[in-house]
Amino acid sequence: MVMRIKVGVLGATGSVGQRFVQLLKDHPFFELEVLAASERSAGKKYSEACYWYLPESIPEDIGEKLVVPTDPDHKAFEDVDIVFSALPSDLAKELEPEFAKRGKLVFSNASAMRMEQDVPLVVPEVNPEHFEVLEIQRENRGWDGGIVTNPNCSTICAVITLKPIMDKFGVEMVNITTMQAVSGAGYWGVPSMAILDNIIPYIKNEEEKMESESLKILGDLKNGKFHYASFKIGVSCNRVPVIDGHLESIFVKTVEDAEPEEIVKVMDNFDPLKDYNLPTYAKPIVIRKEIDRPQPRLDRDNGRGMSITVGRIRRDNIFTVKYTALEHNTIRGAAGASILNAELYIKKYL
Amino acid sequence: MVMRIKVGVLGATGSVGQRFVQLLKDHPFFELEVLAASERSAGKKYSEACYWYLPESIPEDIGEKLVVPTDPDHKAFEDVDIVFSALPSDLAKELEPEFAKRGKLVFSNASAMRMEQDVPLVVPEVNPEHFEVLEIQRENRGWDGGIVTNPNCSTICAVITLKPIMDKFGVEMVNITTMQAVSGAGYWGVPSMAILDNIIPYIKNEEEKMESESLKILGDLKNGKFHYASFKIGVSCNRVPVIDGHLESIFVKTVEDAEPEEIVKVMDNFDPLKDYNLPTYAKPIVIRKEIDRPQPRLDRDNGRGMSITVGRIRRDNIFTVKYTALEHNTIRGAAGASILNAELYIKKYL
Amino acid sequence: MVMRIKVGVLGATGSVGQRFVQLLKDHPFFELEVLAASERSAGKKYSEACYWYLPESIPEDIGEKLVVPTDPDHKAFEDVDIVFSALPSDLAKELEPEFAKRGKLVFSNASAMRMEQDVPLVVPEVNPEHFEVLEIQRENRGWDGGIVTNPNCSTICAVITLKPIMDKFGVEMVNITTMQAVSGAGYWGVPSMAILDNIIPYIKNEEEKMESESLKILGDLKNGKFHYASFKIGVSCNRVPVIDGHLESIFVKTVEDAEPEEIVKVMDNFDPLKDYNLPTYAKPIVIRKEIDRPQPRLDRDNGRGMSITVGRIRRDNIFTVKYTALEHNTIRGAAGASILNAELYIKKYL
Amino acid sequence: MVMRIKVGVLGATGSVGQRFVQLLKDHPFFELEVLAASERSAGKKYSEACYWYLPESIPEDIGEKLVVPTDPDHKAFEDVDIVFSALPSDLAKELEPEFAKRGKLVFSNASAMRMEQDVPLVVPEVNPEHFEVLEIQRENRGWDGGIVTNPNCSTICAVITLKPIMDKFGVEMVNITTMQAVSGAGYWGVPSMAILDNIIPYIKNEEEKMESESLKILGDLKNGKFHYASFKIGVSCNRVPVIDGHLESIFVKTVEDAEPEEIVKVMDNFDPLKDYNLPTYAKPIVIRKEIDRPQPRLDRDNGRGMSITVGRIRRDNIFTVKYTALEHNTIRGAAGASILNAELYIKKYL
Repeated sequence: MVMRIKVGVLGATGSVGQRFVQLLKDHPFFELEVLAASERSAGKKYSEACYWYLPESIPEDIGEKLVVPTDPDHKAFEDVDIVFSALPSDLAKELEPEFAKRGKLVFSNASAMRMEQDVPLVVPEVNPEHFEVLEIQRENRGWDGGIVTNPNCSTICAVITLKPIMDKFGVEMVNITTMQAVSGAGYWGVPSMAILDNIIPYIKNEEEKMESESLKILGDLKNGKFHYASFKIGVSCNRVPVIDGHLESIFVKTVEDAEPEEIVKVMDNFDPLKDYNLPTYAKPIVIRKEIDRPQPRLDRDNGRGMSITVGRIRRDNIFTVKYTALEHNTIRGAAGASILNAELYIKKYL
Repeated sequence: MVMRIKVGVLGATGSVGQRFVQLLKDHPFFELEVLAASERSAGKKYSEACYWYLPESIPEDIGEKLVVPTDPDHKAFEDVDIVFSALPSDLAKELEPEFAKRGKLVFSNASAMRMEQDVPLVVPEVNPEHFEVLEIQRENRGWDGGIVTNPNCSTICAVITLKPIMDKFGVEMVNITTMQAVSGAGYWGVPSMAILDNIIPYIKNEEEKMESESLKILGDLKNGKFHYASFKIGVSCNRVPVIDGHLESIFVKTVEDAEPEEIVKVMDNFDPLKDYNLPTYAKPIVIRKEIDRPQPRLDRDNGRGMSITVGRIRRDNIFTVKYTALEHNTIRGAAGASILNAELYIKKYL
Repeated sequence: MVMRIKVGVLGATGSVGQRFVQLLKDHPFFELEVLAASERSAGKKYSEACYWYLPESIPEDIGEKLVVPTDPDHKAFEDVDIVFSALPSDLAKELEPEFAKRGKLVFSNASAMRMEQDVPLVVPEVNPEHFEVLEIQRENRGWDGGIVTNPNCSTICAVITLKPIMDKFGVEMVNITTMQAVSGAGYWGVPSMAILDNIIPYIKNEEEKMESESLKILGDLKNGKFHYASFKIGVSCNRVPVIDGHLESIFVKTVEDAEPEEIVKVMDNFDPLKDYNLPTYAKPIVIRKEIDRPQPRLDRDNGRGMSITVGRIRRDNIFTVKYTALEHNTIRGAAGASILNAELYIKKYL
Repeated sequence: MVMRIKVGVLGATGSVGQRFVQLLKDHPFFELEVLAASERSAGKKYSEACYWYLPESIPEDIGEKLVVPTDPDHKAFEDVDIVFSALPSDLAKELEPEFAKRGKLVFSNASAMRMEQDVPLVVPEVNPEHFEVLEIQRENRGWDGGIVTNPNCSTICAVITLKPIMDKFGVEMVNITTMQAVSGAGYWGVPSMAILDNIIPYIKNEEEKMESESLKILGDLKNGKFHYASFKIGVSCNRVPVIDGHLESIFVKTVEDAEPEEIVKVMDNFDPLKDYNLPTYAKPIVIRKEIDRPQPRLDRDNGRGMSITVGRIRRDNIFTVKYTALEHNTIRGAAGASILNAELYIKKYL
């Protein structure tokens, strides 16, 4: 018996939307049925509605599909069980609940609902038990469907590397400076005049998101309530002239002292999903031993863009250790994150 | 009476050497007399010996000068009182003492002698009293001249911003992640294939230099001995695709608590050299209030490349404050640093 | 007696508008009185209405000025004699005639009116005699003022280098491939995702403009009618990841044969405005002899951005000669072009 | 029966050498036996001898191989039948004949021997019949082996697109301006300081190579003598800040007039190797219909880097048509070109 689940993508023409399409096009059990976007795009062929910016060509049959409006009542969504959302935050806030109300499971990359008390914010290797809050969400809101969110791109990179450290040694303080790729801001987000031969030391709301989301994800869900993690975290975010791949300088003070080699070991062994046989799965952390890795252009595609690459794990004078982590921000940090959530949810609960 | 001091530049054809030439060409009291470089360049016209990479043209009379070898006994150095050194470290270690022995004052940008017990490592706004150790140096080594060093480019940016904080509030811990321009590695240092659409999370010896040099500079000289500063400092260094301008995310824990506005104020008021009338002087710290500044391309030339630009001074969850600082690495961070040292030394001691 | 002429800038907040402001701020006889922009900006301080993208700071007194709407009847324009236009083409078509009707002299960088039969399209070193058609324009249209246009950025670079060749040897065929900087498309014109590690081999309408404008400019005005130049010209335009500076590979077949050295000579001697003492004037063509020049980053600021830099003048197998020319596209190719037109017009006719 | 041919790579650690390794690692009938490089690398593991700059990891078994010196008498070459050469030109001139003398077939990407009267310069889709001159070469030089060369990267891009035009309409004149990626100059070839925010309008010997090689390749071999093609060709070469992918603006005057659509058609139908079943084969020309393609980052990997992508085929005012062509310069333009030559030669002659 082959499982086939019909899915739709909201915000399908944008840069994260295109990654959803790319990752879903040959998916073994998700069938990409609906491509939804703004009124301006609706009614056009997908290949005409979007400026496809990925190197590999737009899949031909998908290019021919007609884009529908992101209207929860549009009949195109009738047969769809899951929608992946790459909507901008304000639209997500308005529309995702409408889809959930109509019985759809929404796996959302938008920030709108992430910090709600009854919405799971999940990185599947880190806190899959948070899915449980979905029941409370349905009860609270009277929905047949539900909303599952994944964190901000730069949060995902951080928490995947922090989780094995926390489990073994405890985490007391975390300091992060990010160097984030332009694709994180969407196709039109960063003008070339702003970033060629330059860095922008500011990304709107990014530091706040990283600081609050990390504590929710690495916290506990007890009796239906989230108890946030209690370590201190301070972040500084920068935009750099790199196409794809967020790089993060991470400093961690552990509760129990840990040698760099021990950190290497717990990271390398961290692999909680390896037996689930999920199509989008890759080893969550790849360790590079060279002194000058990870590098965005050379390492972002490790694990088909789903692995975090970590290197330069070493002692620090203030924190216990420091290291550099890299994530493909539009795959592991966005579309791939939502899809891996959906895959795991289905394996566990359906 | 007009003071004229004849000077030479060692390593005049490299990227820092060219900045020395640019900054010295119309200097009111330094007369650029000798351009010295490796045997390969010696005997050629300067304009032919070096690939001039700066936008403004090579000054014509300087382009016509013949390059001499970096031989301390070469007769070209006879009339020279000061030599500026942009030599690679190994050559500096060997040759700078020879020049000092022959009575020259060496103002060196090289790292070779910086951490020696009797060598001043000076940022003129920060620790000009360290010049005093020169007397001990002369005594120890039997030199008529002497060697004064300036720190590594990324150290200068950090200590200039830390000094006014330390003076007012005390400093307990400092955490820095740098994003450094390619010119810091010299013209041939970073291949384009290594850095286009990329970041390299490693610069050889850079973290060690920043950590040790900062403590020497911000420490005290008492009875001819250096007492290093006692705060903790941890650094992570990265190379980014930017031509000029090192950007640093700096986190500081102060001894006494300080509001961000107070930090802004002490930085803005920090101006210990303003009455010396030094030709290369500019206000040491320029504060930008915009949320997304400083940026390398827009701010590196503030104060003709001699000002550190600081922005985003704000609270942090672990440290007292965090901010972003920018320095023109080949001017303020290298050639300009040596020249400002020489200018102040002359005003104070000659 | 000091001449003072009050001027305004239409479209003052955009990338060309900012160059107008930069070039006019200390102008000896133009007084920058009015900064006009869209309704969205009107009423705000200039420093708040625009994202100032130039390295040097926004002039303080100008930053404080209030932006007015681009309404020809706005009272701010009452005392203004000249308006410089950096309007988008559609707005230019509608508004520039209204300003001319109200007695203003409009010096426009917009493309809307360039090819009109009674509108001069002038590069002041090349075809200043075309100003004469202004009289016919006023007669035809019943205007007290008038509209003078300058060509597209990449056209200016080409025609300045072609003019001295045409005068001496005649021109039969011209082939050009351009490599154009991102600033030519305006601040938001080229997303970083489109151009990092990339080239876009297409710029809308650019090839057509270069082909038609060149023939008008290098043609004759006889008895009030334009006779276009008769040489053949074919162009291919590309966008490259460079901030400022359009580079053009130009191939020219002359009527009479010409040695490369002769081409060098006529270009180097080409200097028809040198005796006019115009504030924005610089030597129109700077020749670089090095084998690998001109280069955008190193040569775009020659002549304060007003000189075209030419190099690699050599024989070709099909054409008589080929060479590489570089222009600062937002100074010489836009704002500076309009201002130099205005300066010459005033010297000649007022 | 499975054909296995043992091969070696000369210059295996450089940027083209790495592409050879990448393309040969899972080859169906070439077995990569010997990795040869300079004395400095010899004796080290390949993974230690080279800085592997490609995104995908170095194949593990190959990384473990010991590098041997490029000594034709080294016993490692004993069992090898074919050597691929990525040597610098001066070494190639000296060493390739020595390998040929010892019975090896040398498929060389070096320029040293390309224009020799008895050396085939082959693009397999264009002039495979030139292989025939190998017999004369062996006779002339008394070799058991032989040398087959492929052209310069930017020549290959041009001649593949010119061949179908020439066959159908004849070619009278060709004008090309190139925009070439930095990888074409090797890993250390273009410093980042030279090319960030910049273009270099010069590549040593490149224009001469394109002009002469094109005429040899598109010429005839009759009675063992090359008769060069007789069209005129003029070229201008530029280096741009792009990692991989040479872009060329090509203008062609045909003997018989041709509509753009006809050019599209002959290019699209051009596929002389499709029935040979060669492992490295891909459709030689891919046509993109979008107005702004091909683009290096989006199109260089078409056909696994072996297809030339062509777009913007349109009328010109001087030439019959103009178009833009793109080639992955280190695959189709270098390593892949040599390997495809070898594959075809083996299919035809062994």
